[in-house]
Amino acid sequence: MKPEKDLGARQRHHYYFRNGTMDFYAGWLLGYSQVGGLSPGSLYDCLNRVKDGDPGSWVRAFEEAAAYQDGEARAAEARGSGSIAAQHHLAATTAARAALNLCRVRTPEAVALADRMEASFQAAMRAGATPIEPCEVPFEGRRLPGYASTGAPSARTLVVVVGGGDTYREDLWFFGGAAALTRGYPVLMVDLPGQGRTPSLGLHFGRATLEALDAVVRWGRARWPDHRVVLCGWSGGGYFTTKYVDLFGGVDAWIASTPIEDLAKMFEEAMPAVLRGHPEGWAQRALLRIAGRLSPVLDVSLEKYSHQFGPGGIAGAVELMRTVGRVEVDRLDAPLLALVGTSEAAEAQAQARHVYEAVHRRHATTALVEFSPASGGDAHCQVNNFPLAFEHIFGWLDRIGLAAS
Amino acid sequence: MKPEKDLGARQRHHYYFRNGTMDFYAGWLLGYSQVGGLSPGSLYDCLNRVKDGDPGSWVRAFEEAAAYQDGEARAAEARGSGSIAAQHHLAATTAARAALNLCRVRTPEAVALADRMEASFQAAMRAGATPIEPCEVPFEGRRLPGYASTGAPSARTLVVVVGGGDTYREDLWFFGGAAALTRGYPVLMVDLPGQGRTPSLGLHFGRATLEALDAVVRWGRARWPDHRVVLCGWSGGGYFTTKYVDLFGGVDAWIASTPIEDLAKMFEEAMPAVLRGHPEGWAQRALLRIAGRLSPVLDVSLEKYSHQFGPGGIAGAVELMRTVGRVEVDRLDAPLLALVGTSEAAEAQAQARHVYEAVHRRHATTALVEFSPASGGDAHCQVNNFPLAFEHIFGWLDRIGLAAS
Repeated sequence: MKPEKDLGARQRHHYYFRNGTMDFYAGWLLGYSQVGGLSPGSLYDCLNRVKDGDPGSWVRAFEEAAAYQDGEARAAEARGSGSIAAQHHLAATTAARAALNLCRVRTPEAVALADRMEASFQAAMRAGATPIEPCEVPFEGRRLPGYASTGAPSARTLVVVVGGGDTYREDLWFFGGAAALTRGYPVLMVDLPGQGRTPSLGLHFGRATLEALDAVVRWGRARWPDHRVVLCGWSGGGYFTTKYVDLFGGVDAWIASTPIEDLAKMFEEAMPAVLRGHPEGWAQRALLRIAGRLSPVLDVSLEKYSHQFGPGGIAGAVELMRTVGRVEVDRLDAPLLALVGTSEAAEAQAQARHVYEAVHRRHATTALVEFSPASGGDAHCQVNNFPLAFEHIFGWLDRIGLAAS
Repeated sequence: MKPEKDLGARQRHHYYFRNGTMDFYAGWLLGYSQVGGLSPGSLYDCLNRVKDGDPGSWVRAFEEAAAYQDGEARAAEARGSGSIAAQHHLAATTAARAALNLCRVRTPEAVALADRMEASFQAAMRAGATPIEPCEVPFEGRRLPGYASTGAPSARTLVVVVGGGDTYREDLWFFGGAAALTRGYPVLMVDLPGQGRTPSLGLHFGRATLEALDAVVRWGRARWPDHRVVLCGWSGGGYFTTKYVDLFGGVDAWIASTPIEDLAKMFEEAMPAVLRGHPEGWAQRALLRIAGRLSPVLDVSLEKYSHQFGPGGIAGAVELMRTVGRVEVDRLDAPLLALVGTSEAAEAQAQARHVYEAVHRRHATTALVEFSPASGGDAHCQVNNFPLAFEHIFGWLDRIGLAAS
């Protein structure tokens, strides 16, 4: 059973679907089950109802799961069972989040799912008395939605979690936000331009993403003036953090899975050819569909990425990246922990190693961890073994003097 | 794709294999990933190498994983990374445990796997500075192997975790031992006659299992003389705890997933016919195999259960259960939390409800929680959503005045 192509090389195991993109998503959601998402039972209850390769059946299954979990959460709240309610709310968050992945952008259905996801996440935090709250970071006359720690966490280091091309601020909770908070770190998790719902505010991936990251860091410094600052970037966030350290500097350490110095080259080497043309328009996509070169899953995904990249689409963004986006690795002046899955695209692994070597020359505490398939952390962003990645991250912060306690 | 029969009705979702028993095991191991077992990535790295229905390929894949995880754990220890080592040791424990499930009993391979599992588990506890230690509970001139809390946990209630027909004491860590300890309860997790490695000591399921449970409770009371005592029984432990409360009484509360009053009837209603004959002997099993009525997976499983039931085998044990084993539900005198998966055998659900109703008449705090397929807790022992089961268990203990804090 040979799997169908995913959007790029992101993993090598086979979880459930022949469709490569759906299979990556199945594994990613199993990964979330280790850190508070849908349990394996609830997840497979959805997957068993999905038709392989059919985005609509995926969206329906997870919409139903979100509604079910929301109902259970409300029932638990009515009984006064806060911790059970919190678990169901977080499961509802994950179900809505999963549905969003293959739901057509700019539809009322997608808006309702994002609303459900946000409401459920915030209800989970309240029900579990978790010390974080929604926040808004001003940026060029707009407000970037995020979450920030409340109270007085014990650690004197702020962890800023930075997502990529497929994250909402709620994802950042699973991508280390919760793990950092549990260990006593204050955390900041904000949607940058292009991420989450920001494309609907007219914000897209590009130079603005980096400038917004600077606004986020400044906002964090204002809130925690005595704290050191660590960036923790995932997926595209591996590029944003690397380029940020290049352009702005000033952070005490940074973690990237994976550090990327040349995003344009990453796109060209690692993404399927069909995404690298100019297939943004409705007519072009229709022709590709008819020619059988664009499966329904790729079609929905492409439309989503185009939405995030703005009017020029992905191809325009790659052109921009080629001219202004390259990182000057010799300017990178902060210790780095590079996390790399050995089942990721060869280009990602090569760039990570190159960035690591350059930074290591200036900062001897810089480290590189490569995750093999047997480790379970070999996929993109270590999505199939988050707890192992987190032990490496927080162990490294301990060793370089940025411990939580 | 219609799945092949499992040993009984234990779940309804489809995880990975057509073979029903292997598929239940895959789901069970995914469940462990939520509470410290193999990550989904490491697990599917094994599953992808297993030939559906072939026990030998299963054993080999997990043996290799155990060796890999053991090597990673030792490397982490050599680097002084205790928490990473602990995670790999616990993954090695789970991998060895998984291999044991389909490894022929009484072989050097099975003995080596049990040794690996125990050594890895104990190394995990040491590396993570977890406050439990191996213990031995004297019973009729022998010593039952177990684990007990050390130090001075905050709660004044001892949680005794009781396994079933498929558990080793190490499993009890995942089945609530860790969850209780995290919440401040002292815990006691002991192999009763028939469980774990006790068949090799000449101990088998039967009246001795109940008398040994009494020895365990007495041992716990001697160690924690001011504590209240709660039993938490899983699978066959749902029967042992129910029958124990009937015969011995004296506990402050008990949790059972599921409470069983008539084990003989459970066997007759819920197990496949092939296991209910007298197929213990080598020759009988060979004939059944030739006739195609005994798949390799059922064959290995049957040999294992026969080993646990002693010389008379399963059929003899059912006969004994029929005459002496029935529970007098009107004698049950302690509050009960009954956990029931709606995808379990109808007979299990019916008995659980009957026990619940009887106990509820005497103890109004008695509760019944039924888990639907969408909840993820619908399988036998809630293996596909342990965290939800635990929230129900510890929330209930809070409500009936046996809180951890």
